[in-house]
Amino acid sequence: MDIHSDRLLTRLDELARIGALDGGGVQRLAFSDEDLAGRNWVQAHLERLGLDIRIDAVGNLFGVWQPRVPRNEPGVMVGSHTDTVGRAGHLDGALGVVGALEVLESLMESGWRPARPLILASFVNEEGVRYMPDMMGSLYHVGDLRIDHIREAQDRDGISIGQEWERLHYTGMDTLLDVKPDTFVELHIEQGPVLESLPADIGIVTGVQGLSWYEVTVTGASNHAGTTPMHLRQDAGVVAGRLAHLIRDLPNEIGDLRLTIGSMDWHPNLVNVIPDRVRFTIDVRHPEEGRLVHAERCIESFLAAEDNVSWRSLARVAPCTFSPKVVEAVAGAVEAIGLTGHRMISGAGHDAQILSRRLHSGMIFIPSRDGISHHPDEYSTNEQIRNGVRTLLHAVKHLAS
Amino acid sequence: MDIHSDRLLTRLDELARIGALDGGGVQRLAFSDEDLAGRNWVQAHLERLGLDIRIDAVGNLFGVWQPRVPRNEPGVMVGSHTDTVGRAGHLDGALGVVGALEVLESLMESGWRPARPLILASFVNEEGVRYMPDMMGSLYHVGDLRIDHIREAQDRDGISIGQEWERLHYTGMDTLLDVKPDTFVELHIEQGPVLESLPADIGIVTGVQGLSWYEVTVTGASNHAGTTPMHLRQDAGVVAGRLAHLIRDLPNEIGDLRLTIGSMDWHPNLVNVIPDRVRFTIDVRHPEEGRLVHAERCIESFLAAEDNVSWRSLARVAPCTFSPKVVEAVAGAVEAIGLTGHRMISGAGHDAQILSRRLHSGMIFIPSRDGISHHPDEYSTNEQIRNGVRTLLHAVKHLAS
Repeated sequence: MDIHSDRLLTRLDELARIGALDGGGVQRLAFSDEDLAGRNWVQAHLERLGLDIRIDAVGNLFGVWQPRVPRNEPGVMVGSHTDTVGRAGHLDGALGVVGALEVLESLMESGWRPARPLILASFVNEEGVRYMPDMMGSLYHVGDLRIDHIREAQDRDGISIGQEWERLHYTGMDTLLDVKPDTFVELHIEQGPVLESLPADIGIVTGVQGLSWYEVTVTGASNHAGTTPMHLRQDAGVVAGRLAHLIRDLPNEIGDLRLTIGSMDWHPNLVNVIPDRVRFTIDVRHPEEGRLVHAERCIESFLAAEDNVSWRSLARVAPCTFSPKVVEAVAGAVEAIGLTGHRMISGAGHDAQILSRRLHSGMIFIPSRDGISHHPDEYSTNEQIRNGVRTLLHAVKHLAS
Repeated sequence: MDIHSDRLLTRLDELARIGALDGGGVQRLAFSDEDLAGRNWVQAHLERLGLDIRIDAVGNLFGVWQPRVPRNEPGVMVGSHTDTVGRAGHLDGALGVVGALEVLESLMESGWRPARPLILASFVNEEGVRYMPDMMGSLYHVGDLRIDHIREAQDRDGISIGQEWERLHYTGMDTLLDVKPDTFVELHIEQGPVLESLPADIGIVTGVQGLSWYEVTVTGASNHAGTTPMHLRQDAGVVAGRLAHLIRDLPNEIGDLRLTIGSMDWHPNLVNVIPDRVRFTIDVRHPEEGRLVHAERCIESFLAAEDNVSWRSLARVAPCTFSPKVVEAVAGAVEAIGLTGHRMISGAGHDAQILSRRLHSGMIFIPSRDGISHHPDEYSTNEQIRNGVRTLLHAVKHLAS
């Protein structure tokens, strides 16, 4: 039993043409025309396979394959998302949905029949670029985000999701109450350089890092760079630099900590004026909640030790550990196919992380060239894509047997 | 013999109304309608006093008082500029011109007559905000800037100085060949906090710091903050932070060095993306050329030690030492009036610094509240303004006797 590589690659190309931009890249921002077109493309394939189509109240799409008389067996769900960031690559999300489609079609064609319902899922607004929060569809699915909160969310132009739902006839009313999946597997590109650097064919993802984002504001006094002696200055840039230096040293003290100061804004930002305000962000991530909290305490103690520094939390997500059942199914699939696997933590957030709050969840990663993602240069080789979908096939087959 | 304080303060107010902005501040950008109106206001006063008016080919304004038959005695020039930065205060430049006007008028009224020609000078485009370089009028006056270079300079809207000259009938053809000043004195606000912090009434300015400006560009690789392990990063922000840390330590090693990192721009400047380009500026100043060169060598060796760092010089001005003759005339005036004086180096550039290349030059500073300048909050008390103009009167009287 195997997948049909050409069909898989052709379909990835087809989906990439929906929302393709002049100059490269693809853009299917959540709840846009292109996003709906992408979902419709998936839905047409699910219908062609004869799956039972469900669209829930926020627009999440499900295709249910229930070949035997149901015996109340919990279902196995497989999928990802088809929305994208602005000027995105063609694999983030799309691979997980098109790969799941190929897995279901190949399994059907092989004559094999699952012992449990198999559900292809495509969740809305995973990216959270146009509408916060990200992973919106999976958050709704597990019951952690209320529908009226979602409906009222607005984009930069003041257009609410509710307005877009109405305009696009985007939503349905179907639920999965009769199927009740208890397992979720998601195939995704790594979006980082780890697998490529080892190298390894497949990332056997054991969990997702927790994340904490800060915005820090340092205030000083704006004075003339030439006329103000050093001892009479209140230079916000100097204080921000001292803090950044301390904060950046934390990964040397706390193993596996990832820490990034990604954004910094100086005011008034002139060559001959001492800055009176510097604002910067901290992105800190760790797979273990205890270590993440420790890092947060260190950061906040550095910040509290300086005068004229204020901060606020921009985001906080606890780490998640994937289900051993799913992780071992993935590891077994890698071994069965004869690929090299590497157990790893996901650095980015994914729907599987949200679904793991209620379902046995896990993920499969394939290498991303140069670790690039969210960019038209996002790329994995055809061989890497095939390896990922074949691993998904074997894992799903095992989980649904 | 004394000045008329009320008249002086009234005239400062009058000039401040030319180009006054709603919401505070004054704006007479070089070669604008407001700039011309400011110069016309000064010219009208010079004509009222019966001075011999000269406007040179770039628009510098001179009023010559030559009461005796000339015996080829070199002249004493006194003045500053009336152009301003955007939304400026009311004293930067204006004080030196209005103060000089008051000094000449008071001297005339007293019956005293100079032994040498006395020249009030108001130089164009000292600020260099609309058109580079700053101190343009004095640079032309000493022969260090060619007129065709000036004529072709363009502002952000592509309007050349030549076009503005034509539109405003701004320039004349008069020179000072028959007067030949050999001395220049300029009264100015300190634009820094030194005199206020001491406190002292008058800054006896002995020179102007040299200045060197750099723009530094650090390049890295833009990757996902969550998925990229620390050891696989090329974080331009980390390298920029390390450089800033080293560079900022230089004033602790090189006495009297003033060093400012005033501007910093991150790209792409997103919370969860490792920056791939950070560009920052360095403003470094020292009163002694040797020490300034030493600081530059240190900075460049730090920059050269890092990969993926490039830099260019944005500006370089050598330090200047004022004429002992003028410095002592100012010191003598301070003593004669019974004020407290403080010998100091100017942190900012001034026309006197340019004129010192050819003339015996010096400056008088008065305190600036909180060191603020180039801002509507720029302020000196009436008493401080009076002290400055009285010092100028006595110094000019001494130099022209």
